[in-house]
Amino acid sequence: MKTLSLIALLACPLAVRAAIHTETVEYKHGDVTLEGHLVYDDANRTTRPAVLISHQWKGLSDYEKKRAEMLAKLGYVVFAVDIYGKGIRPEDAGSASAEAGKYKNNRALLRARVNAGLETLRKQKFVDPKRIAAIGYCFGGTTVLELARSGADLAGVVSFHGALDSPNPADGSNIKCKVLALHGADDPFVPDTEVAAFEAEMRAGGVDWQLIKYGGAVHSFTDWNADGSMKGAKYDKLADYRSWEDMKQFFAELFK
Amino acid sequence: MKTLSLIALLACPLAVRAAIHTETVEYKHGDVTLEGHLVYDDANRTTRPAVLISHQWKGLSDYEKKRAEMLAKLGYVVFAVDIYGKGIRPEDAGSASAEAGKYKNNRALLRARVNAGLETLRKQKFVDPKRIAAIGYCFGGTTVLELARSGADLAGVVSFHGALDSPNPADGSNIKCKVLALHGADDPFVPDTEVAAFEAEMRAGGVDWQLIKYGGAVHSFTDWNADGSMKGAKYDKLADYRSWEDMKQFFAELFK
Repeated sequence: MKTLSLIALLACPLAVRAAIHTETVEYKHGDVTLEGHLVYDDANRTTRPAVLISHQWKGLSDYEKKRAEMLAKLGYVVFAVDIYGKGIRPEDAGSASAEAGKYKNNRALLRARVNAGLETLRKQKFVDPKRIAAIGYCFGGTTVLELARSGADLAGVVSFHGALDSPNPADGSNIKCKVLALHGADDPFVPDTEVAAFEAEMRAGGVDWQLIKYGGAVHSFTDWNADGSMKGAKYDKLADYRSWEDMKQFFAELFK
Repeated sequence: MKTLSLIALLACPLAVRAAIHTETVEYKHGDVTLEGHLVYDDANRTTRPAVLISHQWKGLSDYEKKRAEMLAKLGYVVFAVDIYGKGIRPEDAGSASAEAGKYKNNRALLRARVNAGLETLRKQKFVDPKRIAAIGYCFGGTTVLELARSGADLAGVVSFHGALDSPNPADGSNIKCKVLALHGADDPFVPDTEVAAFEAEMRAGGVDWQLIKYGGAVHSFTDWNADGSMKGAKYDKLADYRSWEDMKQFFAELFK
């Protein structure tokens, strides 16, 4: 057995070295307390690129925490932010929709909340403040697009099956970072008219943008908890795999 | 100098081993003689995946030959096919348009010509006949889509700034391989209505498809000879880089 362990050590030096640190981080937006989730490889002591993750409509959950761990293992400092506030984690679709609606109907508040998360991430240990990207799923996709539209100083944002609409399309011209929208081609919650309006916004704003459509994929295609019980939203293993690879390629370009 | 050479040999064993073989291959479609260009790394003696390249409207040129070399260096056996026939290489836009038009208006002939190239590739040394992809640029993008629509036995096809239209959208249901369409979002030669019709064809045919739109890119975005003298067609270094990476990722999935 000793020989085998030695072989394993020699064969997988990176895997053996990894020591994933996770930490609950409380931070503030005005008087509101937010509770995010910080993850990084503690065996790596160097300054490095960072990724902000913005959550789906039920708030920061194990799903985003798992994505944070996956990204930390790729070498990033990762912060899964909290838009709703500490303890606000709606459990059913009705209350999740109502909570998300507060922010979708108040984009200024949504931008302020996600920017509070970005500034918290920027100050964390090992973070290169000039090399930060943001990703988001579903409601979180909309959130990181609003982060970009706020003119935030970022390298890039990635929306996974996020709504692409904007009440103020002229704000596209505020965007300074690169934008990648990953879209299920059969997503009934993000119809073609909305996709077309997004493209028009990006074009008019002079943004460096890309859009990828995954044939056959519907809403929530990356969410392994989406079992199809909600019509039009279902996990798609292939689209999940492809979109993760597409994100990695985007990051490789941003952080090369 | 001897020491330096030894260091170079030790540091770059793969680069030093590579021996790119190029060969003009004559083949037939009926009575018509076609002249393709075969490229592979001769230092690699193993059976491996292969890539067919289909040319732009001016016929098989140094552009496609360079792409073939680039792909051969990635480890593929590559065959740049000839659709028009030996010696038919229109030099100006007018004659190129007329020549391409013969095939765009006769999709059965186009399919037969590209299938002749595929069968020629399939028989080449080192080719794994079960692991073949096809890519095409501009008119060649249309060509490889028609190859897919013919029901050819392939792993996948990639269209770079190809026209996406089909006179017989029902043929989408013949497609057995994966399809990746790489599209300049501002390409005036492939308008949004054509993109939407392509998506509808893929959807109705139950195809495994993906579409990537590169913001700001127009027609010919990969063609380093497109200097912008033709309105709506221009090389775009960033979209060229991205689309090449997207193709590589697609191949990694096809041939893993």
